Amino acid sequence: MAMVCLSDFEAYARKYLPKIAWDFFAAGADDCSTRDENILAYKRIRFQPRMLRDVSLMDIRTKLLGTEISFPVGIAPTGFHQLAWPDGEKSTARAARALNTCYIASTYSTCTLEEISAAAPGGFRWFQLYIHRNREVSQQLVQRAEASGFQGLVLTADVPYTGKRRDDLRNAQMRFSSVLWMQGDDRSEYGLPPNSLDPSVTWRDIYWLRSLTRLPIIVKGILTKEDAELAVRHGVQGIIVSNHGGRQLDGGPATIDALVEVVEAVQGRVEVYLDGGIRKGSDILKALALGAKCVFIGRPALWGLAYKGEEGLQDVLRILQEEFRLSMALAGCASVSEIGPHLVRFSKL
Amino acid sequence: MAMVCLSDFEAYARKYLPKIAWDFFAAGADDCSTRDENILAYKRIRFQPRMLRDVSLMDIRTKLLGTEISFPVGIAPTGFHQLAWPDGEKSTARAARALNTCYIASTYSTCTLEEISAAAPGGFRWFQLYIHRNREVSQQLVQRAEASGFQGLVLTADVPYTGKRRDDLRNAQMRFSSVLWMQGDDRSEYGLPPNSLDPSVTWRDIYWLRSLTRLPIIVKGILTKEDAELAVRHGVQGIIVSNHGGRQLDGGPATIDALVEVVEAVQGRVEVYLDGGIRKGSDILKALALGAKCVFIGRPALWGLAYKGEEGLQDVLRILQEEFRLSMALAGCASVSEIGPHLVRFSKL
Amino acid sequence: MAMVCLSDFEAYARKYLPKIAWDFFAAGADDCSTRDENILAYKRIRFQPRMLRDVSLMDIRTKLLGTEISFPVGIAPTGFHQLAWPDGEKSTARAARALNTCYIASTYSTCTLEEISAAAPGGFRWFQLYIHRNREVSQQLVQRAEASGFQGLVLTADVPYTGKRRDDLRNAQMRFSSVLWMQGDDRSEYGLPPNSLDPSVTWRDIYWLRSLTRLPIIVKGILTKEDAELAVRHGVQGIIVSNHGGRQLDGGPATIDALVEVVEAVQGRVEVYLDGGIRKGSDILKALALGAKCVFIGRPALWGLAYKGEEGLQDVLRILQEEFRLSMALAGCASVSEIGPHLVRFSKL
Amino acid sequence: MAMVCLSDFEAYARKYLPKIAWDFFAAGADDCSTRDENILAYKRIRFQPRMLRDVSLMDIRTKLLGTEISFPVGIAPTGFHQLAWPDGEKSTARAARALNTCYIASTYSTCTLEEISAAAPGGFRWFQLYIHRNREVSQQLVQRAEASGFQGLVLTADVPYTGKRRDDLRNAQMRFSSVLWMQGDDRSEYGLPPNSLDPSVTWRDIYWLRSLTRLPIIVKGILTKEDAELAVRHGVQGIIVSNHGGRQLDGGPATIDALVEVVEAVQGRVEVYLDGGIRKGSDILKALALGAKCVFIGRPALWGLAYKGEEGLQDVLRILQEEFRLSMALAGCASVSEIGPHLVRFSKL
Repeated sequence: MAMVCLSDFEAYARKYLPKIAWDFFAAGADDCSTRDENILAYKRIRFQPRMLRDVSLMDIRTKLLGTEISFPVGIAPTGFHQLAWPDGEKSTARAARALNTCYIASTYSTCTLEEISAAAPGGFRWFQLYIHRNREVSQQLVQRAEASGFQGLVLTADVPYTGKRRDDLRNAQMRFSSVLWMQGDDRSEYGLPPNSLDPSVTWRDIYWLRSLTRLPIIVKGILTKEDAELAVRHGVQGIIVSNHGGRQLDGGPATIDALVEVVEAVQGRVEVYLDGGIRKGSDILKALALGAKCVFIGRPALWGLAYKGEEGLQDVLRILQEEFRLSMALAGCASVSEIGPHLVRFSKL
Repeated sequence: MAMVCLSDFEAYARKYLPKIAWDFFAAGADDCSTRDENILAYKRIRFQPRMLRDVSLMDIRTKLLGTEISFPVGIAPTGFHQLAWPDGEKSTARAARALNTCYIASTYSTCTLEEISAAAPGGFRWFQLYIHRNREVSQQLVQRAEASGFQGLVLTADVPYTGKRRDDLRNAQMRFSSVLWMQGDDRSEYGLPPNSLDPSVTWRDIYWLRSLTRLPIIVKGILTKEDAELAVRHGVQGIIVSNHGGRQLDGGPATIDALVEVVEAVQGRVEVYLDGGIRKGSDILKALALGAKCVFIGRPALWGLAYKGEEGLQDVLRILQEEFRLSMALAGCASVSEIGPHLVRFSKL
Repeated sequence: MAMVCLSDFEAYARKYLPKIAWDFFAAGADDCSTRDENILAYKRIRFQPRMLRDVSLMDIRTKLLGTEISFPVGIAPTGFHQLAWPDGEKSTARAARALNTCYIASTYSTCTLEEISAAAPGGFRWFQLYIHRNREVSQQLVQRAEASGFQGLVLTADVPYTGKRRDDLRNAQMRFSSVLWMQGDDRSEYGLPPNSLDPSVTWRDIYWLRSLTRLPIIVKGILTKEDAELAVRHGVQGIIVSNHGGRQLDGGPATIDALVEVVEAVQGRVEVYLDGGIRKGSDILKALALGAKCVFIGRPALWGLAYKGEEGLQDVLRILQEEFRLSMALAGCASVSEIGPHLVRFSKL
Repeated sequence: MAMVCLSDFEAYARKYLPKIAWDFFAAGADDCSTRDENILAYKRIRFQPRMLRDVSLMDIRTKLLGTEISFPVGIAPTGFHQLAWPDGEKSTARAARALNTCYIASTYSTCTLEEISAAAPGGFRWFQLYIHRNREVSQQLVQRAEASGFQGLVLTADVPYTGKRRDDLRNAQMRFSSVLWMQGDDRSEYGLPPNSLDPSVTWRDIYWLRSLTRLPIIVKGILTKEDAELAVRHGVQGIIVSNHGGRQLDGGPATIDALVEVVEAVQGRVEVYLDGGIRKGSDILKALALGAKCVFIGRPALWGLAYKGEEGLQDVLRILQEEFRLSMALAGCASVSEIGPHLVRFSKL
């Protein structure tokens, strides 16, 4: 089977992953309408491509908070990579480093921060964290992340409680959060208790987080201009427009639709990124045209891992890289700096 | 089979109910387009969820005309519960009381008002009535409802004649209205004659109804701002935006679409409720965001009964309760008073 | 099989008619998109029904150019009724008279005008005609129609050439127009030559037609405000908004969509009717709400004939009559004079 | 099997062409959404047909840059006709001449320019070219085209790189561009190297091309008003609104949608043509109504070749011709000069 595009990796993963793992990765909240909208929304955006521009030398590099990456696609935080590939997050870290891009390791990683770090020294990585009821747990994670060379903290804002994913409830034994919790002191005995996340967190906790670390703070899960404004005012360095892959509140906007109002509110004061629904190079181009500095992929990274671990994820990233470069060229852009809102239009469909 | 969401109960009822009963409950008028629109319309409404708000303490209680209920979902009036479960409306009454919410008993109940009342003493109940050609029938029902402790009268306004439900016509023996009429003096001999409802009823009959009782009057079946204004002027205490589950005029608006203009016309002078199409907690949140004080469920209550009587209906209500609480939290609301139009937007779809 | 709604008759006709006859009746031009739009367009129109109005006495009668009919549905001109039922147009004429409504007999009838007339003396009938290259043919037809008691002439304006109906071309032997031409002097020898219709006809030919007869002239096939204005200026008594059942130009508007601009242009100076896509009583109500004085049914009449001749067509008409009466009542109208644009809204869908 | 409309030829080609050839002709970029939009977009355009206009004498001729053709449909440049029919482009040239219309021969023809020319002397032909990295290759092609009697040069502007067509990548042996390159000095030895096209081409290269030839230059692949303006300013004689049949950038507009803004920008200073999605006579009428002087067909010409070579392509052209003439007549236009924007409206769908 030729692996030509990301759908090929999806089909592979659906076929070869254990059902319970596929279900967990694929799950969306309730009717999965937001999960599916993340993808459908791209089809309503039309390019206005420009012709006969010199695109012989293509520069697709960009920078995340000053750090150069080879192209504007990073790895979004997703949990439990060992469900997809034995080496888990170690393979993810190596693939991201090989492609010279950013990997956001999840709190729910099945390797420790230190293992991830050791697997790919020198790689560009951020750490995704929640704020726990027991603030000490969060504080220790921040310190370990900083000590392990992670270069940014991504605070997930959209999980005061876990969304209702029907298939996970049907696959009742799916208790990853306690079974596989790997960031504690003792893996076998110190599991993460269910309901360990603190639903009372507010914007003021950003100040507390700021007091713990000198790392940049990126807030993930913003979907409105109001929250974008609050994020800027509370001093974050970046915003990830995200709906958690449609796994939290079903019925919210597709991220590419929410991106426009967030970018408009932020007015360049902080960097804005996006995750959700990226399946082709042209999706990346649309997101950048609408103001994202970079996008992150979630499920496609897992499909790559499921296919062949590090190598499979490299394949996925390389396909996106080539597709993005080609889309840019065909739209008449030779470097990411030439991408702008003039390239797209929301269709009547 | 795990009963995770309301669709599971629907699938169960479709499978285990006698076809004639399923058809009767499921029926919509003509092409069933309004029945189906009631559900589809929710998909065109998008949340604008807010993040990082303290949702550790959730308060989902509300009040119906001053009476507190545990969450803003009641039981809409539907007929013939014994077709779904032997105990019929007695089970419904018990389940509603167990969840501390409002049950609107139908005129076409297969238990008498007195039996319903005795089944769940102290429960919060309204009685749904039509105005009969023979006004004495209506008057007696009102008096019995009041005597049995019902706390409100819900006047159905959208049945001058019964809508054309094709499956019921095909299942020709479906003559529930005369066979099963239980509110008469003698169940076996005093059936409700067909065409007993009076198609000449107008708004002025509200005054007559008012003269019979001191109970609050709620008018059910309003879909336009003009009728909402008339309802207010004629002194009702509440309005249920309803299209009778799509069983009367096919081609009318989804109730969630009609809600907006009714709420705008009423301007808070009376409480506005809605039934039709509620299948998930997020549907409830959308209806409240658009101005409904409470919603009522029709078919889902019957599916719950069909599953396990009182217990099944409790399951249905509890699922909605949990989903509603979670949706509120994920949208950034800790109490129903924080829900408002800022939470939603009509999508371009 | 219970015949509950018009779809039941359609299913019957599809099953029992010879394929070649079904194909001919069902055919639309090209991709049949206009044929299908005629039906789909009704789904985009939403009622705004009014409640608690006295609808105990329903009056669904209307008048066509002064002649009363029992409800605002007539029989549109369609050809070759003997393909559907042995008695052909004689049955059609009898059914229309039985229901006290208007039957527009087609030039391509398989009974002569005189036979049609004799079959149902006293019936209210119009005659549909084309203008032939040989004007004498048209003139004779007009005179025969007038002599046979037809009370109006319906000039078809949208057939300068016959539309391209793919199935008819595939069923190549389908040469009804010459084989079955019945309006000539000698049925067996005087067939209508192909291409006998005159594509050079213009509005000025209305004056010529007017000079031949004192019957009212109704022009059929108007879809724009410009042509509606021309029709009025050339002195016609009525306009039928029609796209020939989607059999002529594929890609034109649904008739219910075109109706609005025609009604607006005409401003009550002549009566406006509509054919195309009427399948339910609520469709009739929508057309009247948007300004049609009456609608005409084409294919449904043929399905009725195919089912049981006169009796089957009576069934079809009676179903529409009952559905229309019910829709009116459920929308809050007791007589056709209460129907108006306030009843409907074009939906966002 | 009766060949009644273009879909019949498509079905034939899909059935009888080798899969690899069918895949190559049918391919679109990525998800094929632009390829499919080219067709779907026509369905959103509604005619406003006019009635009772004299259409007895139909004149469907038009002129391309002063040269009369029998109707406004030419053959768009597509490669590798020998994959569809042994005689390849020779048959194409003969069919175009037989119908008296314009054939744009592709650079990727499987016959030489001289062979094409010799096959149909006196035919009206343009030559499609790319600008090669080795400018001499382009220069020689221009000179040979001019010498062979081609009357125009069509510069393809939308292929700085080849689009990603998944099926071609899966059919990995599909290396037509080098294997079948026929325009070199020695067919067997001088193949076109991959990547021979120059991605650094800009508008200024139009001046260089102009310096090589006195033939008119038509630029193909324009989709925006900005590029249309640039084309006019750089002195081209014509613009073909095209997205390369959806084979280059996926996600761009349907050509019929882009046509409007190009026509508006050009304001009659140069002729505007269109290719993409033409499948019926009414599609041609819509394109002309929106301002195209002529349309070109790509895949349908290949289906005609696949069916019966020259004869099959003549069939395809003749069907379009008849359908176009009929559509014009049914819309009330007797000559192409009467076609205008008043004939169409973008539908709400």
